[in-house]
Amino acid sequence: MSEIARTPQPPYYAVIFTSERTDGDNGYAEMADEMVKLASVQPGFLGVESAREGVGITVSYWESLDSIRQWKQNERHLVAQRQGRSDWYLTYKTRICKVERDYGFEQV
Amino acid sequence: MSEIARTPQPPYYAVIFTSERTDGDNGYAEMADEMVKLASVQPGFLGVESAREGVGITVSYWESLDSIRQWKQNERHLVAQRQGRSDWYLTYKTRICKVERDYGFEQV
Repeated sequence: MSEIARTPQPPYYAVIFTSERTDGDNGYAEMADEMVKLASVQPGFLGVESAREGVGITVSYWESLDSIRQWKQNERHLVAQRQGRSDWYLTYKTRICKVERDYGFEQV
Repeated sequence: MSEIARTPQPPYYAVIFTSERTDGDNGYAEMADEMVKLASVQPGFLGVESAREGVGITVSYWESLDSIRQWKQNERHLVAQRQGRSDWYLTYKTRICKVERDYGFEQV
């Protein structure tokens, strides 16, 4: 179950990945789990949030653009990206962002 | 149903709003619909994507930091923000981001 990521003080970076899936699992769930685990141990990884309801939105947080670039080039992640385009996604959009400011609320 | 937002070429801005809800609706769904409609006609609004599965993630896209500030100060939105803290959310985090780069995929 995804939770709100415990990110540090800005600035840091976010990758917003919004997608629409094809029908059926086709090995997606297993690979998605593997990718979250693998991302979590990459240098510069700060956290991830994910929800799907019609569209899927996954936001991963990173220390730097360089850590995002390295993750994009991870060999196993490249396999997942290829399979994503061939099997899992009708369409997706990836947005690379600099988080400039954040604030939160917690019910007491 | 939320779709992938048709945003212009970067740079533009994103507000990532991640939340955990209280139990029950308590008027939430109606206000959420109203807020999406109202946001959509604000100056500088570019699009919105939303999904809830455990956490809720809503990403709205904007032309400028100023358009984000104006929306945050909208009177009806201020009412919704107050009710959010009193009734709807256990916790939330808002992150203001500059989208520096994006790319997409569409199955042919």
